Amino acid sequence: MKTAAYAAQSADSDLGPIEIERRDVQANDVQIAIEYCGVCHSDIHTAHNDWGGTVYPVVPGHEIVGRVTQVGSNVSKFKEGQLVGVGCMVDSCQSCSACDDDLEQYCEKGAVMTYGSDDPISGGRTHGGYSNLIVVDQKFVLIVSEKLDTKAVAPLLCAGITTYSPLRQWNVKKGDKVGVVGLGGLGHMGVKLANAMGAEVVMITTSPEKGADAKRLGASEVLISKDEDAMKAQAGSFDFILNTVPVSHDLNPYVSLLKRDATMVLVGALNPLPDLNGAGLILGRKRIAGSLIGGIAETQEMLDFCAEHDIVSDVEMIDMKDINTAYKRVMDSDVKYRFVIDMTSL
Amino acid sequence: MKTAAYAAQSADSDLGPIEIERRDVQANDVQIAIEYCGVCHSDIHTAHNDWGGTVYPVVPGHEIVGRVTQVGSNVSKFKEGQLVGVGCMVDSCQSCSACDDDLEQYCEKGAVMTYGSDDPISGGRTHGGYSNLIVVDQKFVLIVSEKLDTKAVAPLLCAGITTYSPLRQWNVKKGDKVGVVGLGGLGHMGVKLANAMGAEVVMITTSPEKGADAKRLGASEVLISKDEDAMKAQAGSFDFILNTVPVSHDLNPYVSLLKRDATMVLVGALNPLPDLNGAGLILGRKRIAGSLIGGIAETQEMLDFCAEHDIVSDVEMIDMKDINTAYKRVMDSDVKYRFVIDMTSL
Repeated sequence: MKTAAYAAQSADSDLGPIEIERRDVQANDVQIAIEYCGVCHSDIHTAHNDWGGTVYPVVPGHEIVGRVTQVGSNVSKFKEGQLVGVGCMVDSCQSCSACDDDLEQYCEKGAVMTYGSDDPISGGRTHGGYSNLIVVDQKFVLIVSEKLDTKAVAPLLCAGITTYSPLRQWNVKKGDKVGVVGLGGLGHMGVKLANAMGAEVVMITTSPEKGADAKRLGASEVLISKDEDAMKAQAGSFDFILNTVPVSHDLNPYVSLLKRDATMVLVGALNPLPDLNGAGLILGRKRIAGSLIGGIAETQEMLDFCAEHDIVSDVEMIDMKDINTAYKRVMDSDVKYRFVIDMTSL
Repeated sequence: MKTAAYAAQSADSDLGPIEIERRDVQANDVQIAIEYCGVCHSDIHTAHNDWGGTVYPVVPGHEIVGRVTQVGSNVSKFKEGQLVGVGCMVDSCQSCSACDDDLEQYCEKGAVMTYGSDDPISGGRTHGGYSNLIVVDQKFVLIVSEKLDTKAVAPLLCAGITTYSPLRQWNVKKGDKVGVVGLGGLGHMGVKLANAMGAEVVMITTSPEKGADAKRLGASEVLISKDEDAMKAQAGSFDFILNTVPVSHDLNPYVSLLKRDATMVLVGALNPLPDLNGAGLILGRKRIAGSLIGGIAETQEMLDFCAEHDIVSDVEMIDMKDINTAYKRVMDSDVKYRFVIDMTSL
């Protein structure tokens, strides 16, 4: 079927309206009328082909909340009118060791991403949430609580799970001293989630002016990473660090902050990172790890956790036609902390 | 008391004979007549002041095996004539969280190293095993089995525990596919120990000519890291990698070899490591960690494990006067795989 959407037609083009083909509802599918879609930095990287491999036209958007409009004949878990979400993935092989472990994001055959992947069912391409409608296999549809502010739930589907998953994997718990590096879309969710898990959260940032906001979000302290004396005073004191910085940067000052046997997890920087000092890891048996979004079961767990703890993203609402301005502002880090598109404006 | 030793007198000097002052035997001390001392790359770095901070004269040597000649009044665990070993540390605060965890190498006050540290008891400096005698607190003296080839036990006290500890910490077990990067003093012990733990060991090396020897030591396979096709064929297949390379090098090809959630531990490279690719960690939830020697209890466990599995180092024996030639050969990687000084030659 044809659906309305906004797409990039080339790396240099602005996004604009387009009609795209979506698959018809299959036996296991859920069709969703999209109400809100968050704007993730990955959308921009893909639209601009920063990572290579973008096939145009591309319809970004993987922080999707909407209501079920139709279900396939095998679907009993969802019903028309229900509030649901879709995140970064819409399918996976369901038979590899990663899928068996509920870690579809590491599917050994390659997960089917919400946009820009080959659609194994239609034979076409997947298209994301800058659209009025999406059709997704029920296994990749999440239940969204009616209790939260729906528009502010959308960013949980990527920014929320990306920060929740490593906090859980590394067992962040009450009383732990947790550093969150970088206060953007990911970082602000990291602060809220770690705080809700009972950790003492320290916002680690280069920007003193972000301090007040970090505290409002749940940080008990702000550590300015450019202040060498302040960094030295907190050396060896962190149980865990969540590093959300999305660009290449020097990891060594943050490694110094870790306790013995503690871990820093990278969730943002897909780039080459310069001159990691081996001694920093060896002399304290420290660890650097990576983490990519989260599996579907864990995404549902995160949404339930957020409903229980009344956590949503801080959002700024835009209409669909304002997407290109929003992209520019995201690139300038000028958003607190996530743009969300009101999809009725399409 | 005065003891005979070999010392470096400056960063540029050859090592030569010297008389040094050792503390008299205290109530908790064990005095040991040194029979054998291994030659570790750290000895050379310290003698040459490569890491800064060397105070001359320095007597290197922290792979020490000898026999007890005297014990203090509080010592009941050791008796005259007993075969014992001393590794990289001779004391620690015994009251910090690291010491409480039997991880004296990470002592928060700083462990007292076997050479080049301030001696908290005598007020002088500690001097290492290139000497006829050493006096050490009983807590830092290890029991050595009479069953093994004594001279080949000496390198276990550093090269052995440095490789054993991360294999244990990361729970290497029967059937795991374990890569050992680099075939030198550390690497050859890594191969032997991982093999004895039941792992399938792959020697990962830049040097095809090392293949036969790696297999003799226990590797089931040799992977040439310069062979891009071979590396690609084994991508994502390793449960654990022990990286013993002692110089700056590109970690990314080895990260690619790891399975999801698998770890590479660095034990050799204290240097800045160039351009670590964040995506390599993030896209597979992989980990890079460090590890420094091992605690005293674990060192005893390692020695007992080696006695049980009949594991010693491959050694080349030298006389004390040949130490400067040996240093040059170690720097040229021209030793299979550890020089050991016959201390009766002093």
